[in-house]
Amino acid sequence: MTGVWPSERSASKEYYDRAVSVMPGGITRIQPWQDPFPVYAERGEGAYVVDVDGTRRLDMMNNFATLIHGHAHPVIVAAAQAAMQRGTSFALPTPAEVALAEAICARTDNFEWVRFSNSGSEAIMCAIKAARALTGRPRIVKIEGSYHGMYDYAEVSLDSAPANWGNDPRPVGFSKGVPQGVLDDVIVIPFNDCEAGERIIRAGREHIAAILVDPAPGYLGFTPIDRDFAAMLRRVASDIGALIILDEVISFRMHFGGAQTLYGLEPDFTTLAKIIGGGFPIGAVAGRRAVMKVFDHRQGKPLLPWSGTFTGNPVSTAAGKAALDLLPQVEIDRLELLGTRLRRQIAGMIASSGVPAQITGIASMFQIHGHDRTISDYRTAFHSPEEAARLRRLQAAMLLAGHHMSSRGMGFLSTPMSEIEVDAFCEAFSRCVGALGVT
Amino acid sequence: MTGVWPSERSASKEYYDRAVSVMPGGITRIQPWQDPFPVYAERGEGAYVVDVDGTRRLDMMNNFATLIHGHAHPVIVAAAQAAMQRGTSFALPTPAEVALAEAICARTDNFEWVRFSNSGSEAIMCAIKAARALTGRPRIVKIEGSYHGMYDYAEVSLDSAPANWGNDPRPVGFSKGVPQGVLDDVIVIPFNDCEAGERIIRAGREHIAAILVDPAPGYLGFTPIDRDFAAMLRRVASDIGALIILDEVISFRMHFGGAQTLYGLEPDFTTLAKIIGGGFPIGAVAGRRAVMKVFDHRQGKPLLPWSGTFTGNPVSTAAGKAALDLLPQVEIDRLELLGTRLRRQIAGMIASSGVPAQITGIASMFQIHGHDRTISDYRTAFHSPEEAARLRRLQAAMLLAGHHMSSRGMGFLSTPMSEIEVDAFCEAFSRCVGALGVT
Repeated sequence: MTGVWPSERSASKEYYDRAVSVMPGGITRIQPWQDPFPVYAERGEGAYVVDVDGTRRLDMMNNFATLIHGHAHPVIVAAAQAAMQRGTSFALPTPAEVALAEAICARTDNFEWVRFSNSGSEAIMCAIKAARALTGRPRIVKIEGSYHGMYDYAEVSLDSAPANWGNDPRPVGFSKGVPQGVLDDVIVIPFNDCEAGERIIRAGREHIAAILVDPAPGYLGFTPIDRDFAAMLRRVASDIGALIILDEVISFRMHFGGAQTLYGLEPDFTTLAKIIGGGFPIGAVAGRRAVMKVFDHRQGKPLLPWSGTFTGNPVSTAAGKAALDLLPQVEIDRLELLGTRLRRQIAGMIASSGVPAQITGIASMFQIHGHDRTISDYRTAFHSPEEAARLRRLQAAMLLAGHHMSSRGMGFLSTPMSEIEVDAFCEAFSRCVGALGVT
Repeated sequence: MTGVWPSERSASKEYYDRAVSVMPGGITRIQPWQDPFPVYAERGEGAYVVDVDGTRRLDMMNNFATLIHGHAHPVIVAAAQAAMQRGTSFALPTPAEVALAEAICARTDNFEWVRFSNSGSEAIMCAIKAARALTGRPRIVKIEGSYHGMYDYAEVSLDSAPANWGNDPRPVGFSKGVPQGVLDDVIVIPFNDCEAGERIIRAGREHIAAILVDPAPGYLGFTPIDRDFAAMLRRVASDIGALIILDEVISFRMHFGGAQTLYGLEPDFTTLAKIIGGGFPIGAVAGRRAVMKVFDHRQGKPLLPWSGTFTGNPVSTAAGKAALDLLPQVEIDRLELLGTRLRRQIAGMIASSGVPAQITGIASMFQIHGHDRTISDYRTAFHSPEEAARLRRLQAAMLLAGHHMSSRGMGFLSTPMSEIEVDAFCEAFSRCVGALGVT
């Protein structure tokens, strides 16, 4: 087996041996971890990744929903290479940042002004700080279990569990040592529960700067936001003088104008990242001028001074503009058809295999779950350790079968894919579905 | 004057007119702002930037100390272009992240393990969260006026002023609406003041997770940390069980092994960014294994799970490796000689002109000040509105004379520069020095 992951004699093992001596645990991100050691990527080609041992696999990860056009799309590569030949960053603005801002604002009337950052985490931090600056209030409301990057406040209750989540959700720190001051300033509500949501929000009304919500949260199975719940949030937010931050870092791929257009939502701030950088580091906050003025420096120091060395750099913004230009509604519609095709096939295979599992998802996103309970929020999506282990077994089996998917069962389609790739993935799944069985 | 900034008929004006309709104030970063509208960069060439109207200027900004090799260095461009042709980011690790981690760890024994992020702001947030996770304590100590990016805690007292700074420094929020919980968890001390520093730190000893310090803080005139002050911080930190986070985002350029090698410092965590990405978005936390283990996932959930979609991406890390390879100690020594040459000439010109000004700095960094009071910390470096206006006048005059420098009087040398560029800058300064005069 020389030279094929997970052989001890593979090149991936060689890189990992070097990596453990210079990085904690040998990695710099947690999600790509793979027992017994990660697969190292040599290059990507459209829908596929070739590892350092020369093994080619279909990539259903696309860097966690970032690469909607797959790997090394020639138009995006050309745009980025041209940009970098002119310089990668400046202490000056460049035409590229203007062009991407125009392309983003053209996607929905909700975006009148946009402010860039370097990641989704920075975008969320920026939007939360903006809401505090506008309202003078310290607290945010967030959905239990919903992922919004690494800003402490946004991480609260990301992995709360039956032992600590309480009846009404309680704020639970994600990393160790989260200051009590952070927990005191986060109010957690269950997803799509109008009664509990409104009751809990109103109880903290005078302190709330913003309600942070993802319209189809990933760790919750990409369950879409209920119209009633969205309407309640909008009504209550306006009523108590709080703002709505819609996190479209992932969901923006659902429609030309994002999930907010699809669902008719009217957030105050929207956070973006992932696809708007064409595969390069980026983040953004967008919204109407009435709130985006919080960044405006023209009357002296802004309420929220926001900057950043790499923010709006010409490579990320040129690549992002190219990626958005390549994503008209018709391409999004085609991806949705592929997503439906994939979900139907997988659902059928799960049903006929009898394993306790299910597939959820929407548009170009899917999530396979290690249990068959009906999913409506974080608690119903929650996996016991044994159920989570089933998904890791599935992921390892799919990897050996030539397909990358996440260890939490997630996948994201890309435009280089066609029915051929989707059907190949499903065919591999049919051979691996037993990994989801009870042991 | 058609076509030359700040003409109303310049291409920069045209871009700015487009920009104001899609971005708050027409910009996405504050520092590059320029009255009446910014200069838009078309391309960079080594030590020079050509704007969208074709005007070529010497760049003493180098994107705020990021571009130590100037613009579009052919070796860095080649490394980045080759990387991106293989794909810009993956849900897998790549050889490039290992190579950069090795290059960083090779620079000082203090770096045994490194963890990447996407910006200096993220690196600081990461290090602070890491210190909290290790100690279980919520608070940080920071230096009054010192800049460490946009994480709320790190921003405290960034621009405190006589009206609010108190006798002993008081924590002052930077943006509007900073939660009281943030202010309660930040202790501010004056720079290089052993007595006050030790007294204030000891008063809060049981709550302190980390002491955050830049060894040559920019807004404080790049005044180097006193050996006694550094020794006091190390002694007191160890005594009270707190960690030292040394912010080398900018100062790492001062020596092959950073300012910590130059000054013999022994921080627990070091934050890096700027030059280690070769001009692409990056950040990192480095340190000895005893503390970096906070990130290790091999025994289950780490104390601090740290990840990020773009973290450790192959383009930023390949470019960063190329940039570090191009920066042996001899190049750093040469830049320091150029820095000394520049500071001596400018100091002489200020002296003979009689304007109330001065130049400070160290290694390849300098800062011109709009007053001539002796600078030892934030309060002595502090500029009145009139003094700050003098610097903006100088910067505008230098821009018209063909030289980019910051509106706060800062500049950073790059390796494409020689005596020719330094002398040209000084010659221009000699014509512009009157802008620093009292009006």
